[in-house]
Amino acid sequence: MYRTRDCGELRLGDVGREVTLAGWVQSLRKFGSISFVDLRDRYGITQLLLGEALNEKLAVTPLGREFVIQATGIVSERSSKNPQIPTGEIEIKVSQFNILNKSATPPFTIQDDTDGGDELRMKFRYLDLRRNEVKKNLELRYEINRAARNYLFEHRFMEIETPFLIKSTPEGARDFVVPSRMNPGQFYALPQSPQTFKQLLMVSGYDRYYQVVKCFRDEDLRADRQPEFTQIDCEMSFVEQDDILLMFEGLIKFIFREVIKLDYTETVERMSWEDAVWNYGNDKPDIRFGMKISNIKSPLKRKGALEADGHIISKGEFKVFDQAETVLAIAVPEGASWTRKQFDELTEWVKRPQIGMQGLVYIRYQEDSTLKSSIDKFYSEERLKSIAVFCNAKKGDAILLLAGREERTRKAISELRLEMGEQLGLRKPDEFKLLWVLDFPLFEYSAEDNRWVARHHPFTAPKPDQIKLMIDNDPNIPNPDDYLQHPYADIKANAYDMVLNGNEVGGGSIRIYQRELQEKMFDALGMSREEANHKFGFLLGAFEYGAPPHGGIAFGFDRLCAILGGSESIRDFIAFPKNNSGRDVMLDAPATIDRKQLDELSIQIKN
Amino acid sequence: MYRTRDCGELRLGDVGREVTLAGWVQSLRKFGSISFVDLRDRYGITQLLLGEALNEKLAVTPLGREFVIQATGIVSERSSKNPQIPTGEIEIKVSQFNILNKSATPPFTIQDDTDGGDELRMKFRYLDLRRNEVKKNLELRYEINRAARNYLFEHRFMEIETPFLIKSTPEGARDFVVPSRMNPGQFYALPQSPQTFKQLLMVSGYDRYYQVVKCFRDEDLRADRQPEFTQIDCEMSFVEQDDILLMFEGLIKFIFREVIKLDYTETVERMSWEDAVWNYGNDKPDIRFGMKISNIKSPLKRKGALEADGHIISKGEFKVFDQAETVLAIAVPEGASWTRKQFDELTEWVKRPQIGMQGLVYIRYQEDSTLKSSIDKFYSEERLKSIAVFCNAKKGDAILLLAGREERTRKAISELRLEMGEQLGLRKPDEFKLLWVLDFPLFEYSAEDNRWVARHHPFTAPKPDQIKLMIDNDPNIPNPDDYLQHPYADIKANAYDMVLNGNEVGGGSIRIYQRELQEKMFDALGMSREEANHKFGFLLGAFEYGAPPHGGIAFGFDRLCAILGGSESIRDFIAFPKNNSGRDVMLDAPATIDRKQLDELSIQIKN
Repeated sequence: MYRTRDCGELRLGDVGREVTLAGWVQSLRKFGSISFVDLRDRYGITQLLLGEALNEKLAVTPLGREFVIQATGIVSERSSKNPQIPTGEIEIKVSQFNILNKSATPPFTIQDDTDGGDELRMKFRYLDLRRNEVKKNLELRYEINRAARNYLFEHRFMEIETPFLIKSTPEGARDFVVPSRMNPGQFYALPQSPQTFKQLLMVSGYDRYYQVVKCFRDEDLRADRQPEFTQIDCEMSFVEQDDILLMFEGLIKFIFREVIKLDYTETVERMSWEDAVWNYGNDKPDIRFGMKISNIKSPLKRKGALEADGHIISKGEFKVFDQAETVLAIAVPEGASWTRKQFDELTEWVKRPQIGMQGLVYIRYQEDSTLKSSIDKFYSEERLKSIAVFCNAKKGDAILLLAGREERTRKAISELRLEMGEQLGLRKPDEFKLLWVLDFPLFEYSAEDNRWVARHHPFTAPKPDQIKLMIDNDPNIPNPDDYLQHPYADIKANAYDMVLNGNEVGGGSIRIYQRELQEKMFDALGMSREEANHKFGFLLGAFEYGAPPHGGIAFGFDRLCAILGGSESIRDFIAFPKNNSGRDVMLDAPATIDRKQLDELSIQIKN
Repeated sequence: MYRTRDCGELRLGDVGREVTLAGWVQSLRKFGSISFVDLRDRYGITQLLLGEALNEKLAVTPLGREFVIQATGIVSERSSKNPQIPTGEIEIKVSQFNILNKSATPPFTIQDDTDGGDELRMKFRYLDLRRNEVKKNLELRYEINRAARNYLFEHRFMEIETPFLIKSTPEGARDFVVPSRMNPGQFYALPQSPQTFKQLLMVSGYDRYYQVVKCFRDEDLRADRQPEFTQIDCEMSFVEQDDILLMFEGLIKFIFREVIKLDYTETVERMSWEDAVWNYGNDKPDIRFGMKISNIKSPLKRKGALEADGHIISKGEFKVFDQAETVLAIAVPEGASWTRKQFDELTEWVKRPQIGMQGLVYIRYQEDSTLKSSIDKFYSEERLKSIAVFCNAKKGDAILLLAGREERTRKAISELRLEMGEQLGLRKPDEFKLLWVLDFPLFEYSAEDNRWVARHHPFTAPKPDQIKLMIDNDPNIPNPDDYLQHPYADIKANAYDMVLNGNEVGGGSIRIYQRELQEKMFDALGMSREEANHKFGFLLGAFEYGAPPHGGIAFGFDRLCAILGGSESIRDFIAFPKNNSGRDVMLDAPATIDRKQLDELSIQIKN
């Protein structure tokens, strides 16, 4: 061993001991005839004191930043202590040192606030990984990984590895494929998830399975996507939805407690997908703050809730609202005091192409109970008042209204709400709010093919009381314009998403375990009997030999780490991430391969 | 939840409780108006007693093997107890049951000694996985996995995930490649191991890394190889060989203790590669038994050891030995009493093409001190005696001799030794003997290219005192016939293999961490500077910025599980293995993919 102790552990109690340390030169300071070196390793930083004799050696063989050295000396009390670091009370009076390896000047500084740009840091990722910031992220990731494994072990889950070289069954996302040399013209696929394998393991009686596992999707990359990503993948037998929800909110609470020392005692909120969309404009609401959407006018059907039929605003008053399919509003605390300039900026914000609104209407509900708005010439103060009341606005609030097509407007108000939450400091990175979103539609309608597509995946079961409805009805849609009238449009999935601070961190469902129902599902998705058998014959076969009721969930591990680390970007929590073109700029991969390799694989590049 | 308790936990103390169980019908026995069902789940088997009323229900909806049912009833003491199973003292007096799912008759019996052939069990792997035998293997695998993780955590190793979509740098084994859709004509490769990444992590200062990780090699499959396999991959900084050996024999001892309750207190033996080959005929000797090879005649150079120059056998006595390059012998206990027939069978055994010998010579060293042999007419008894003495044979032993070309004969005697150990019951599956094999040659000679190839991989360092020799000498081999005279032929690798019961379960090395030495290595392997930079530029670059001394090891996790499970076949310890053609017969993968997929990837099949 090149060291007897590490750079993070020595304290006053060690004074007088001879130790040998090894690590990197973080900094070097010369004072007359002596020098100080801050020596860094994974565990911390320790100050080395190099006296006169060694300084002569330094003159001959100078040290530089990031040199790797080994130093032996006596632990001594420091005269000027540094309370910022755990080893700040001691230093090593060095009797001898060796340079183990030199270092060229790094292309950027190895510090929390580095001067290196994104591209440069990715190219020299091995240096970027030295930064404390990045190291903390990877340490957090390991702690979450360990906590998850420990919880799952305690709850009798068994980790079982599933294969990576499987069969291509593209459903939704594209598969990465791997040409087989031994079976020319044939390909393996890399798994988008171990979905069918974990279901087979339930059929095999393994009862509780998990795996922390890499998955692969060949998608056009958006900001926060990686072609390879890690899931905590879980499945349980003999369970209903409620069993899963309790087990896995337990997992997240356990991680909170173990890793970020947060005792999450409150009940995890549950919300239907319909409520989420109605009140928050999306299916993964951030419930750290309220500011719910008021549905002033909307074509969405809404049983039981206050009807958004436009009775708040009368026809003929304001043409823009009259013509809009949808009018949605939020009441923003303290917004009444905003300046005209601030509202103008907000208006510009909603007009950006990412949001895509024509404009923004606002109403100031002032402290003196009067109301002022950007549409004063269309609406009486009384009318404004009734809008304010409908929006549950309080004195001092600003009411922000957006109008337009349903889908776009709802998305826009959702974004606006999040932006307001951000601006008002209501989205605190150290506050954590869990939420289950439930009762998703089982199917979405594909106008292109005039058929149903699975909203989650083809293995998700409908709600138990809708199984009969699904089996008894023909999935074909006779009249495309009338698809909403088809009984399948009302079928809810026995599915659930776990949402944390406005991010979907996990999702799953109770699965179909009956061959007849699974065949009906494939049928509904427009898959012929032949195609279903070709792709999923093994699963349909397995369902014939005693498949138990089962369900599961998969957590996006990269995202979970990022949120617990208080970051938006999953890339910061991956040791060697790829860029937005799917490239590893450090390796310079992907790359061309030898002609010989192509020949062996019986493939060629198409020009 | 479909159950309140599981099928493995109920005991006499639970008598009187109402419980609900769910599981599979293992068997069904009818006695007059009552029936017994053995209900099975992951945790065990519990007997259900179905009384008269329920038997009427059974008549209408009969149960069958592997049906999935749910049953509620009172735990009761059994009149005839079954001491074979933990739940054997109780049964459930069932008040009601539901069939959750039916089962067709399985294509083979779900029992320890199943009637299913290999192919059938692989096709219906989800049923094979129900067998207790297979379940025990996967449970063992999970326990070893957990124990390894716990030990590594305690020793401050950090799990860090490395990427799966990397760059193809074929060295030795073939890469599996993955066409990139977004970068047409370019390919990712799947990692053969995370070797360069773990080294980069050391350069990044992570100090101690591990990963339980899938690796991929596109090799022609031999019996015990899989195209995808799992490694426990580890790396440490600031270490020398001895630190690694102690750390990782500690890991295996910990696994022994935790998983198979074996307290391995003895010192782990260490053996040089030369000694292994000299005494056991291979580089992974099974040292559970002795029966060392006696080198009666061999061209191998051997400093310090008794020279095998043929002085034991004189020229002109026995032509076969005279003409043979090598004559090797083992003394087999109790072999003197074998019959002629037994020796004939052994002779047939060594003549099999897998062994490839011309014949077998044997000497009986009889209890009365006389010696009889198959070559009596060539050798005097005195000569036989001196052979026996040379072989350390005792009275009652048989001495078995093989003669021929060095490489084949040594391999043959090694196989014969193992076969004898097997026949004599000396290779006990529940006895475990660890061994480190050290001091491998750094290079092997490739006659085809007249150059050196790395015996381990290009990142393995030479012994510290041979670094200068390696740097100072030109790796080119001027005279192919004389390659053994080249200084590189004597360089030993700073590498080590862990051998368990004659199987290599782990291997690793101290790595090169100096750019100059690494470049020299690439040079020695016939790689041009351009090629080295194209393939490994990132690593050479990393070595410029303060790379610490480091080394590591990787364990073949599948094999480790198999050995600890007392099996020869890794396939039994993999949930979904591939067959010898690399096919998953359950999925029927690999398979053809759609034309559309090929087009998107800009590749086509070559005819």
